[in-house]
Amino acid sequence: MENPQRLYVQPHPGRLEAQWVVGFVDGEGCFFVGIDPHSEMTSGFQVLPEFTVVQHQRDVQLLHALKQFFGCGVVRRNHGERLAYRVRSLDHLNEKIVPFFEKHPLKSKKRVDFLKFRKILQLMTKEEHLKRDGIEKIRAILKTMNTGCER
Amino acid sequence: MENPQRLYVQPHPGRLEAQWVVGFVDGEGCFFVGIDPHSEMTSGFQVLPEFTVVQHQRDVQLLHALKQFFGCGVVRRNHGERLAYRVRSLDHLNEKIVPFFEKHPLKSKKRVDFLKFRKILQLMTKEEHLKRDGIEKIRAILKTMNTGCER
Repeated sequence: MENPQRLYVQPHPGRLEAQWVVGFVDGEGCFFVGIDPHSEMTSGFQVLPEFTVVQHQRDVQLLHALKQFFGCGVVRRNHGERLAYRVRSLDHLNEKIVPFFEKHPLKSKKRVDFLKFRKILQLMTKEEHLKRDGIEKIRAILKTMNTGCER
Repeated sequence: MENPQRLYVQPHPGRLEAQWVVGFVDGEGCFFVGIDPHSEMTSGFQVLPEFTVVQHQRDVQLLHALKQFFGCGVVRRNHGERLAYRVRSLDHLNEKIVPFFEKHPLKSKKRVDFLKFRKILQLMTKEEHLKRDGIEKIRAILKTMNTGCER
């Protein structure tokens, strides 16, 4: 019988291919935008967009491989045995995450959430989130998103 | 503002690329083996291997695309709003599913489960599951599997 130890030999995921990343994010990725009250903002709120992939800690190597692939973001504990790869910087979202998924479209309905997420980033880039009616526009988009995200 | 209807235009996933399938299965796939009591089997048990991918019904097109990709299996309701792409035939598992993931290795720890699943299929192909000690061998492998499957 095959040496059972061999079953545990896990090659480092190495450099990921774009289509693997698309497939994995179709399954496990999340485009989320939080709106938190914030007394120091003119609008009264802080808008916090993030792209996240959560995994059990046994697959932490995959999260680091994603970080290397996108060249931005952090890997942090999410809760319990779950870790998250997370990108929160508006610049990194605009310059790295969005162009990637524009070039390599998601195949699941998560693509719809991505397009709405991109719309919110565009509003933020125009600083609309600093105004009260910009916050309302963002809220209106968020209401229609399927944020089936593990958080 | 962009026509919000456009956000709902979802291109048919079309032909899938191998690396997309690997990434999606790394996230959402499941290699499972059930052992059910069965009075008509000499061993007293029936062994039921299956490869499954479960999704919300909004992504039923992806499950059909997987069925087309592998050229086997069925798409069925799993429970509630969840549907499953499922391959249960030993021949199809041996001839289509296993060779694909041998050629295109999974990158997550699910690869370990795949290798154990393949070992069980090999035992079944040698008809070991028809004997009592074959059932015990299969049970021993199953005990070490991370069957974090949605069922």
